[in-house]
Amino acid sequence: MINGTSQQVGLDPVNSDDATWILTASFVIFTMQTGFGLLESGAVTKKNEVNIMMKNAADIILGGLTYWMYGYGLQYGTGPGTNPFCGVGSFFLDADTENMGIVFATFIFQLSFATTATTIVSGAMAERTDFNAYCVFSFLNTIVYCIPAGWLWGNHGFLKKMGAIDFAGSAAVHLLGGISALVAASMLKPRLRRYDNGIDPLPMGNPINAIVGAFTLWWGWLVFNCGSTFGISNHKWHYAARAAVTTINASVAGGFVGLVNSYRRNRMFLVGDIINSILGALVGVTAGSAFYHPWEAILVGALGAFLVIEFQPLLDKVKVDDPVGAVAVHGIGGLWGMLAVGLLVDDDPLLNLTKGYKGVFKGGGFYIFGVQTLTCVVIGLWSALTTYTILKVINIFLPIRMPLSEETLGADFTEHDIRHDGYNYERIIEELLGQGLKTHTDRSHAPPRTEWDTYLIEKY
Amino acid sequence: MINGTSQQVGLDPVNSDDATWILTASFVIFTMQTGFGLLESGAVTKKNEVNIMMKNAADIILGGLTYWMYGYGLQYGTGPGTNPFCGVGSFFLDADTENMGIVFATFIFQLSFATTATTIVSGAMAERTDFNAYCVFSFLNTIVYCIPAGWLWGNHGFLKKMGAIDFAGSAAVHLLGGISALVAASMLKPRLRRYDNGIDPLPMGNPINAIVGAFTLWWGWLVFNCGSTFGISNHKWHYAARAAVTTINASVAGGFVGLVNSYRRNRMFLVGDIINSILGALVGVTAGSAFYHPWEAILVGALGAFLVIEFQPLLDKVKVDDPVGAVAVHGIGGLWGMLAVGLLVDDDPLLNLTKGYKGVFKGGGFYIFGVQTLTCVVIGLWSALTTYTILKVINIFLPIRMPLSEETLGADFTEHDIRHDGYNYERIIEELLGQGLKTHTDRSHAPPRTEWDTYLIEKY
Amino acid sequence: MINGTSQQVGLDPVNSDDATWILTASFVIFTMQTGFGLLESGAVTKKNEVNIMMKNAADIILGGLTYWMYGYGLQYGTGPGTNPFCGVGSFFLDADTENMGIVFATFIFQLSFATTATTIVSGAMAERTDFNAYCVFSFLNTIVYCIPAGWLWGNHGFLKKMGAIDFAGSAAVHLLGGISALVAASMLKPRLRRYDNGIDPLPMGNPINAIVGAFTLWWGWLVFNCGSTFGISNHKWHYAARAAVTTINASVAGGFVGLVNSYRRNRMFLVGDIINSILGALVGVTAGSAFYHPWEAILVGALGAFLVIEFQPLLDKVKVDDPVGAVAVHGIGGLWGMLAVGLLVDDDPLLNLTKGYKGVFKGGGFYIFGVQTLTCVVIGLWSALTTYTILKVINIFLPIRMPLSEETLGADFTEHDIRHDGYNYERIIEELLGQGLKTHTDRSHAPPRTEWDTYLIEKY
Repeated sequence: MINGTSQQVGLDPVNSDDATWILTASFVIFTMQTGFGLLESGAVTKKNEVNIMMKNAADIILGGLTYWMYGYGLQYGTGPGTNPFCGVGSFFLDADTENMGIVFATFIFQLSFATTATTIVSGAMAERTDFNAYCVFSFLNTIVYCIPAGWLWGNHGFLKKMGAIDFAGSAAVHLLGGISALVAASMLKPRLRRYDNGIDPLPMGNPINAIVGAFTLWWGWLVFNCGSTFGISNHKWHYAARAAVTTINASVAGGFVGLVNSYRRNRMFLVGDIINSILGALVGVTAGSAFYHPWEAILVGALGAFLVIEFQPLLDKVKVDDPVGAVAVHGIGGLWGMLAVGLLVDDDPLLNLTKGYKGVFKGGGFYIFGVQTLTCVVIGLWSALTTYTILKVINIFLPIRMPLSEETLGADFTEHDIRHDGYNYERIIEELLGQGLKTHTDRSHAPPRTEWDTYLIEKY
Repeated sequence: MINGTSQQVGLDPVNSDDATWILTASFVIFTMQTGFGLLESGAVTKKNEVNIMMKNAADIILGGLTYWMYGYGLQYGTGPGTNPFCGVGSFFLDADTENMGIVFATFIFQLSFATTATTIVSGAMAERTDFNAYCVFSFLNTIVYCIPAGWLWGNHGFLKKMGAIDFAGSAAVHLLGGISALVAASMLKPRLRRYDNGIDPLPMGNPINAIVGAFTLWWGWLVFNCGSTFGISNHKWHYAARAAVTTINASVAGGFVGLVNSYRRNRMFLVGDIINSILGALVGVTAGSAFYHPWEAILVGALGAFLVIEFQPLLDKVKVDDPVGAVAVHGIGGLWGMLAVGLLVDDDPLLNLTKGYKGVFKGGGFYIFGVQTLTCVVIGLWSALTTYTILKVINIFLPIRMPLSEETLGADFTEHDIRHDGYNYERIIEELLGQGLKTHTDRSHAPPRTEWDTYLIEKY
Repeated sequence: MINGTSQQVGLDPVNSDDATWILTASFVIFTMQTGFGLLESGAVTKKNEVNIMMKNAADIILGGLTYWMYGYGLQYGTGPGTNPFCGVGSFFLDADTENMGIVFATFIFQLSFATTATTIVSGAMAERTDFNAYCVFSFLNTIVYCIPAGWLWGNHGFLKKMGAIDFAGSAAVHLLGGISALVAASMLKPRLRRYDNGIDPLPMGNPINAIVGAFTLWWGWLVFNCGSTFGISNHKWHYAARAAVTTINASVAGGFVGLVNSYRRNRMFLVGDIINSILGALVGVTAGSAFYHPWEAILVGALGAFLVIEFQPLLDKVKVDDPVGAVAVHGIGGLWGMLAVGLLVDDDPLLNLTKGYKGVFKGGGFYIFGVQTLTCVVIGLWSALTTYTILKVINIFLPIRMPLSEETLGADFTEHDIRHDGYNYERIIEELLGQGLKTHTDRSHAPPRTEWDTYLIEKY
């Protein structure tokens, strides 16, 4: 265990006022996990609503453990061996009494970001990923996040040195999570019968929960973006206040686009479209939320929402099945968010957080736009490659796709022993028993995979 | 776009500590939108639970846009032309780097208030308001709030100059919203068959969601009232701490009255009565929450709760159908809250927020009581007139009442393509098709109004 | 009414920065009531989900009233008559303008703790406690909490003087609540037919709500533990940051144990086991959360979770029916938390909050371990005796167990007039009417107890 010091965490000194801000922000950001869980469990079919919620819990449990074990160290470590690719040190993080304030405040804040990033992908994997395999993935997923987050936000990071601007994580959190979601959804293949009746989204199992989840994310996002000032003293609070206004402005503009667009296309206000418009706008404004004028935030949010909901059906056309739209919201939203900074960011006389770089439309030429593009490319590639490798390796030992039996019965029943009204579990089990197949526990748990699968493929 | 300055926003300088308080309060106050949404969607019948939730989302989206466009300017603008009736300037709000902290912190805080005020009315309009018409109303509703809020809280406001005391919005937010709700509910007429079996409230579609919504409002209210110190430095935190105690005391006294009264009348503890008792008490204490003694808050809360639940059945007797009790809770609670200040408020030696005025029971005579009464009268009149005018005008172009078909099938199905268990949508649609009526989209959307209506009036 | 002063509340002066921290923490801790309500209502059968939620509301209402009336005074009063057993003074708490900041901030913070402590027991009493009797219990329950909380945290307290360390309430809140839950569950006897099919837990009525409740508690717990620094200035924020990390580390370690253990025993991931593992770990780390190293928190959390889920079936074996596992989580978790401090706590050079005592494993010998053990014993005894006495006395006037009819129909129907889908209330009522039994209100309320009971005992 290596003790942290204020040099190690690479931050200006934090005072008690900053600590109030950072810690309070961290606590609120954790409530976004409730938001993700509710949104995802509300969006999937009832038979998997608990399973996806438990996968969100696993993300926090396993993501929390691993971020403490190695994630923080690879992202912010400043020990010997630290290089432009990753930090080294601060593994199994600890700190002595003198430094514990700054080290632990930084850790808890960054952890709240890390669990957000790693939970994004769970939505795209919903309803067909084996729980055990998901847990292994969740344990390893931290590596996907912590390395590029270090490139952008660690003092060793090569993207930071080039001037890349990602204030609150459009690339480090969202583009990364979205690309990871794309790879995972592609590798898993669509849910059974997903496209039997065309590419329209399947009905949500519990739209109220989905909306409550989206609301929870919405308010959490305000804190996510404002809290990214990582302090309130000096002039930081001015930026926090601006981030609050740009974030809310982008979100309402996105919601407006969602309302209009959904009505234009369907003569109805589809819940999924409107939620994803709001969230897409929020992802879009994240990278530059501390820097935009309020009216610019309106544009960034509106365009982000538009891109997200136009992109979603394209994915379905190529039969990439993303049950909650995570790829569109976080991937496309994150990409747009990074590029928008390259177009719109301006001189920042107060704290010079943008280091004098100006966007294309502010007369700064294409340098920062180029850096933002490069950031998207390298983070997208990293995310795609690592996610692919991890899932491929797990799949050798533990199939990442649920057995057919489980997908048919629903993972709530087979993994969590929960029976939903309207599902006749008994009938299927009885027929199964009549065929001489045995359940392998006292609790009517799903029998061994192959027997079930044979049975069910015949049956359904 | 007019840049804001600290003079323009009309506030003493705000430091970074105040900013932490103001911004954190704003974030928590936004969670009250989740509370309103859950309370309303839990209280209505299942077939409209998503629709009312989406209307709450529309309130934030459209209320947010308009408050930024013109609401804030009319409420707090200090540009040329500002007069005792309204502010002018700061439209499409922006600020330069030097002033952005105070301007944007004020805006986000006031926005969280504005969306609260405008969302109150959605509950009273539930289950029978056309979604498109509601969106137009939501877009214009900001005007109802921002003008009188300026009278009370803007430096130009004539009520402020007369000494009116409304610390956290019993009149500006709640009485205003309650009267608006009364007018809207009256104009919309009762829901189909609402009073077929007497005036008892209809069963809640999801009481758990209603209670969770009420809880969310409860904790949010603590922040709403405490945050209204609009800062923590100087002696403001002393008032914030007092507001926390008076708010919680009023609410528990209100809840106690609700428990006793509901049992006395019904030998049961009806969820709606108890929720509305707690909320009525909270509305009641809001205007004077920074000033009361804790035992006074007990009285104010208890009496507020009593008035609210005694008033509710009177509305139903005259067949004003308010599905969630918004008129009683916010209208009566808000009225009582303003008058209670006129009775109980005292000298305030620390910050002199009450400007030396004393209530009737504190030997101050009837001046402040008169001002409070006047405030209620002018805000009530304003709210009634503007709401009436807006809805009347909208109704010319876009009927504010849902078509009968939509009300029968439920707006969740017709507006959001959501099918609830227990509703046989197919049967109705099939019979309809058998009659040669056509659905007008691929998604079994409701057919054009007149055909459906003819059919359904015969059928039901 | 006795005015409070900073001497009376027995605290160092609090500045405005501390107030921001204390008040914000209080607001978030109140959200834990939503968490308890959702967890409990999700864990019980559907027919009682509203009833348990309303009991949680009653806890806040009646616990809030009584804590203001006498709880705070007995816990922190410093008037004449104050003794090592209890404080005297500050009843019906009020404060003059000069002292209101510190007095009221302390009160609201302590109230948020008190309502947490008193609501723990509601889960163990679920599905069979008469609502009226529960309200009386809730009104008196404050006495169970405030006296031992004073022993530990009041300047008069004999446990505080001996050096007992309970940073955020493993004993004062959780062990106390857990023992109270044990006594109450034992006195109430198991639910009808609870053990007809063995000791496995009954299915949850709404697992999603249970998980959302657990998530809400999880994030609230971070604030509960961090907020217990009761300020941020001076060096307090260093401890708050450490408490954040130890709390999250313990919880993820506990969750990990829960995942592994549940899979090991059931080849499934049971929601109840995993929730209770996380919560047990959180209870365990609470007493020493400001003092542990992060890796120690991993151990404390993991072992806490293990003890909690291993203990739960033992209770069921002796037919103590605790529907949500409150005894195991809070009782066993709290006991372990106090003993862990006696083993692991170390010198605390910065603020000397541990007064130089060291745990067994840090070379401090057995003194502090002995004090921690003694604390558990006296608080356990106090909690058991007072809970037993209160319930025994209430039972004389008002039977604490629901009548059989109510338990059969579900308290949602009989106490709150709520009909759930899937329950054929009409059939039972009709048969009842056919037998000449009358319902005693217009609302099909349950008829008088004896008639129903006779009928239902024959019928079921």
